[in-house]
Amino acid sequence: MNILVTGAAGFLGRRLIEALLLRGSLTDRTGQSRPIEQIVAFDMVELTGINDPRVKVVCGDIANAHVLERLIDANTDSIFHLAAVVSSQAEADFELGMRINFSATQHMLERVRQLGTCPKWVMTSSVAVFGGQLPEQVPDNQVWAPQSSYGTQKAMNDLLLADYSRRAFVDGRSLRMPTIVVRPGKPNLAASSFASGIIREPLNGQTSVCPVPLDTRLWLMSPAQAIRNLIHGHELGSEQLTEGRVINMPGLSITVERMIDALRQTAGAQVAERIRLEPNQAIERIVGSWPGAFCAAYSRDLGFTADERFTDVIEQFIHEYQPG
Amino acid sequence: MNILVTGAAGFLGRRLIEALLLRGSLTDRTGQSRPIEQIVAFDMVELTGINDPRVKVVCGDIANAHVLERLIDANTDSIFHLAAVVSSQAEADFELGMRINFSATQHMLERVRQLGTCPKWVMTSSVAVFGGQLPEQVPDNQVWAPQSSYGTQKAMNDLLLADYSRRAFVDGRSLRMPTIVVRPGKPNLAASSFASGIIREPLNGQTSVCPVPLDTRLWLMSPAQAIRNLIHGHELGSEQLTEGRVINMPGLSITVERMIDALRQTAGAQVAERIRLEPNQAIERIVGSWPGAFCAAYSRDLGFTADERFTDVIEQFIHEYQPG
Repeated sequence: MNILVTGAAGFLGRRLIEALLLRGSLTDRTGQSRPIEQIVAFDMVELTGINDPRVKVVCGDIANAHVLERLIDANTDSIFHLAAVVSSQAEADFELGMRINFSATQHMLERVRQLGTCPKWVMTSSVAVFGGQLPEQVPDNQVWAPQSSYGTQKAMNDLLLADYSRRAFVDGRSLRMPTIVVRPGKPNLAASSFASGIIREPLNGQTSVCPVPLDTRLWLMSPAQAIRNLIHGHELGSEQLTEGRVINMPGLSITVERMIDALRQTAGAQVAERIRLEPNQAIERIVGSWPGAFCAAYSRDLGFTADERFTDVIEQFIHEYQPG
Repeated sequence: MNILVTGAAGFLGRRLIEALLLRGSLTDRTGQSRPIEQIVAFDMVELTGINDPRVKVVCGDIANAHVLERLIDANTDSIFHLAAVVSSQAEADFELGMRINFSATQHMLERVRQLGTCPKWVMTSSVAVFGGQLPEQVPDNQVWAPQSSYGTQKAMNDLLLADYSRRAFVDGRSLRMPTIVVRPGKPNLAASSFASGIIREPLNGQTSVCPVPLDTRLWLMSPAQAIRNLIHGHELGSEQLTEGRVINMPGLSITVERMIDALRQTAGAQVAERIRLEPNQAIERIVGSWPGAFCAAYSRDLGFTADERFTDVIEQFIHEYQPG
């Protein structure tokens, strides 16, 4: 199998590549398990720290058609398309968001269509496609009403991928991901960045700002679970995708208050006290428009899975990223 | 008011221009009624037969960025964007459909954004954005699941227009139209073309083919009602659009069998006998994926209206297009 991973130097991209290397094989679109021969790890910055002869690191601008032509060829069996500009950034810079989050996807799909090879394609969508008046638990047939440019761009990708799949130009699966928590590293420009920050920073002995009300309900998935589901999404046969190519992932529904409780329970009261409540209306407006719970019946039927306890999610983070 | 109408030589475009000329004024985006000074009537073929000094006929390719630059300038107060390639054509020629139905809209919105003038914008969307498992009456919060490239392209336009409106690049309204019946003229490549054909051709003394089962339920709107709603959609103030910019229009829900009954009632049994049942699976697949009835609560609240009796719709057609 020849695999392309975009956004390879990002948090999920790197973990996905590590998991694929460990796994060693994937199912091709004829249903046959085949060894992974090459993973093209593409990003605008260089993926470092993975030393495996199967990995070919490539840097470039994903919105550049010439770059895409070299990136995707007739030998590409599968594409994991993770590259994106995060929500607050797409809101702050409309042109950048459109270029990276939408046009690049459109160009990649066009490249694949012109090749005529119909590779497997797994990409991440977002709960940011939803908004407006929402029921407490969002059903699979809920209308899309994005309240951000990021959500709009992801929804347009979903529509394109579904149509390209219907026409057999690509064998696509778009996984609508919950907020991934706990991310390692530094805060980023995602409106949801605080959801990792309020766990990660206190564990690192630093204070962290919570910009939304304590009763804000979030829909979460741990990094390990996200990788499991990305690979599961790839492995499914197209004949199983009876309800379409855009799949609301299962997740863990929890309020910010309960997240902090779980941190207190796992790491102690003095750690949890490092969280400072500091309302930020811009972030509250975006995050508040995202649903806090989903039905996700289709994805559960397809065998996708969710985290069960947030304390486990915190322990996973401590185990993987905390020294000692 | 300086107005641009795309698809001006089409059936709806021509009627809209006639109605606007008769009306003489429109409400600008500050809420002020102003006389119509100019209507730029744009299409790939020349609009003929309307002789009014306020109308400027322009021909060209709507997907050409240079054409758009001349078409839309800082004086453009309102845009009625009706140009499109019909459903069967977009299905048969994927590239053409993407170029005319989606890319042209995207380029026009970009032109408007770069001008920074935030004109009013009314466009037609389609019930073809819906598909898959649908309730008997489609609610306003039904997920979009297009089963055709045409529906996909229209849904992408809707998403873009909503985001451009949210960011105040444009003051947009997308009216999700039922199938417009009875169209004059000849059959076209729309999958729904038969819905006019089974009324129009028998009235003209010709036989007509019905390619779908008699119990197929359609969601219809007469041409006169469509024009009324397009102008109503323009006249609404943006502060009234509390549930978003994409509005499922009200309509008349009726089976093909009842349509034929109405024709028999209005024009006699010998006319209705000119309809031949000839199943066509390709058309049945597309039309069968469209919902036959909508809740349309939002649009009714906003004052959009529907036809009440199909016999009236037929009589409207006879009155307007039948000699004698």
